[in-house]
Amino acid sequence: MISKKMEGLVKGSSVIRAMFEEGKQMAAKYGAENVFDFSLGNPNVAAPAEVNEAIMDIVKNTDSVKLHGYMSNVGHDEVRETIAQSLNKKYGTSYGKENIIMTVGAAGGLNVALKAILNPGDEVIAFAPYFGEYNNYVSNFDGKVVVVSPDTETFQPNIAEFEQKITNKTTCVIINSPNNPTGVIYSEDTLKKVGEILEKKQKEFGTVIYLITDEPYRELAYDGAIVPWVPKYYRNTIVGYSYSKSLSLPGERIGYLVIPHEADDFGNLVAAAGVATRILGFVNAPSIMQLVIGKCIDAATDISYYDRNRNTLYEGLIKLGFTCQKPEGAFYLFMKSPIEDEKEFANMAKTYTILLVPGSTFMCPGFVRIAYCVSYETVVNSLPKFAQLAEELGVKRDGSF
Amino acid sequence: MISKKMEGLVKGSSVIRAMFEEGKQMAAKYGAENVFDFSLGNPNVAAPAEVNEAIMDIVKNTDSVKLHGYMSNVGHDEVRETIAQSLNKKYGTSYGKENIIMTVGAAGGLNVALKAILNPGDEVIAFAPYFGEYNNYVSNFDGKVVVVSPDTETFQPNIAEFEQKITNKTTCVIINSPNNPTGVIYSEDTLKKVGEILEKKQKEFGTVIYLITDEPYRELAYDGAIVPWVPKYYRNTIVGYSYSKSLSLPGERIGYLVIPHEADDFGNLVAAAGVATRILGFVNAPSIMQLVIGKCIDAATDISYYDRNRNTLYEGLIKLGFTCQKPEGAFYLFMKSPIEDEKEFANMAKTYTILLVPGSTFMCPGFVRIAYCVSYETVVNSLPKFAQLAEELGVKRDGSF
Repeated sequence: MISKKMEGLVKGSSVIRAMFEEGKQMAAKYGAENVFDFSLGNPNVAAPAEVNEAIMDIVKNTDSVKLHGYMSNVGHDEVRETIAQSLNKKYGTSYGKENIIMTVGAAGGLNVALKAILNPGDEVIAFAPYFGEYNNYVSNFDGKVVVVSPDTETFQPNIAEFEQKITNKTTCVIINSPNNPTGVIYSEDTLKKVGEILEKKQKEFGTVIYLITDEPYRELAYDGAIVPWVPKYYRNTIVGYSYSKSLSLPGERIGYLVIPHEADDFGNLVAAAGVATRILGFVNAPSIMQLVIGKCIDAATDISYYDRNRNTLYEGLIKLGFTCQKPEGAFYLFMKSPIEDEKEFANMAKTYTILLVPGSTFMCPGFVRIAYCVSYETVVNSLPKFAQLAEELGVKRDGSF
Repeated sequence: MISKKMEGLVKGSSVIRAMFEEGKQMAAKYGAENVFDFSLGNPNVAAPAEVNEAIMDIVKNTDSVKLHGYMSNVGHDEVRETIAQSLNKKYGTSYGKENIIMTVGAAGGLNVALKAILNPGDEVIAFAPYFGEYNNYVSNFDGKVVVVSPDTETFQPNIAEFEQKITNKTTCVIINSPNNPTGVIYSEDTLKKVGEILEKKQKEFGTVIYLITDEPYRELAYDGAIVPWVPKYYRNTIVGYSYSKSLSLPGERIGYLVIPHEADDFGNLVAAAGVATRILGFVNAPSIMQLVIGKCIDAATDISYYDRNRNTLYEGLIKLGFTCQKPEGAFYLFMKSPIEDEKEFANMAKTYTILLVPGSTFMCPGFVRIAYCVSYETVVNSLPKFAQLAEELGVKRDGSF
């Protein structure tokens, strides 16, 4: 018999993942080219050539025990140092390997950070819309998610409500920018305000509040947009990073946490992250992929590919009368549902073999997420289908519906 | 501030891992060849050549999105099927891919299984001596470990005490054979009795009790010893496997769970394992290593290497008057401490640059674990040091001390 907590989770199993499975089945039935699967953030861009070159090189030239054996739970020293130096060059920081913990992707990193920090009953603030898995991660450690409602005009965090929702039980705040599902980059102004409020509330309550910033999309910013380095705006920041999107390696589970020296309880926090990595069963991030990262520190995915998708999709949808904000980063577009119940809308889209994720998955009903990390053909060929959908729903070309 | 639970864990952080760090430091200070580090189960045997050949082949011939992208949380279908067929050939079972869940090593697999099953307060029975991390894994999900005391004569499970300790709150039993730290293989007779008792107790309490068998050492059995396939003796068995030891890949974090069709609540259990893999932050086992396993299903590590270490170490220690049972499998030897406090003994050994793990780490004080997955030279050159240690302690050549 599975646990009670799991019963609920199995029933309501991630809508996104369920769609992934459904997409595979639809592709088998209708042919992959006839299914417009915008459901999952699974990059369609190949990993940069450097990645596979690095793998070959490492396999040829590394002693097997070093290559495939255990290392410290926090990861290979030299890889952590390489990452620290790369961040220093980019953000003018002064990190060393002691600030870097290699993790099993960002999902692994967030679980490690939350395990290190949360006591049962602690409150974790998240800004809607946000990646629904945060609810599960927080629940893993008996924390409680407190949701700040979305500002559906700008999709920047709702600062006034944020300030009101911080209590003496708040031990973490999670942000994600560039944002999944909106593609919005949290502005410097937003981050300054968030930092100021957190400093103020820490003093008011005599507590420590960590700001966990989930940044798998950090390198995916368009039109030269700058993604601010969050620890500059708040001392108690923990950065969670992943190479899943920036190097198209989501199946390999490789990322890292940054814990800056200036964070409260730094030494214990780093030690706790190491212990959490071990006892949660990760033990360490996969060795070969750590070494690959060490060699590919300057590699980058071809962002122009996503940018073309972004422009084509955005302009196409706007022309059809749909309402959405142009994404600034990541590879998601968050579109207003033409009907109130966006789940019904997503179901209607399915009849046109278009797979969209309902916004309620992100605590933001009334919208759908379109993951455009797909082939350009998928984007182009989906537009006539979106047109039929718009027509069925009476969406007007002037944007009203 | 780190969580209260973590404070204790950071302070008492794994003795084994602390030794790993200490061993690295001692090696830097005295030279690696002068440190006899028997502390960690980090195989010193290179991965079989097939592994690196498979990596090269996969990298050259696999589409990047397939190779490095997301797959179902439970793993690549074809790899799971390959593993199922391999088990069928070996054990006469009839598994399919639906019975196999790819995991981030056995540590990941055990966490997934426990997450799927445990309600807060549930009791999990473990037989001392056992791998101390089980305590943390169970605690992750608010379960309670109930320890069956060791039979220090045979190191087979203490069956009478086991039967007494099962209650209506017992939802899991964890076993590990070949055993870490003793090297003992649980006999067919033992497993039959364990299965019978569990069947009886399930009926008595009207409950379901899963037997989780942790088997990273399954392929490491000497002198032609047979490691029984546990699901044959008890229906509600979940097998946790890892390639860490059998293919010398501990840093790569690759293994699997087997959930047989005949297990109670089979469908939910498999679904829960998939969900647990996702929400615990593993998401999936590393993609490239999954594919490697698919290609290396018949590869095996060179067990004769460990066997030579085993014989040399065992015979050497016995000659010096130390007391221990000859290991039948794995690469550990569990030696009686010549003084009551085995922690003090381990500290004395350190002054001879010998690193041993105290048995209390395995809930079995009075013994030390010697991990002989080291170079043959380390074994050979450690024996004069052990001789000095024996002399200091007045260990007699006839075995008395």
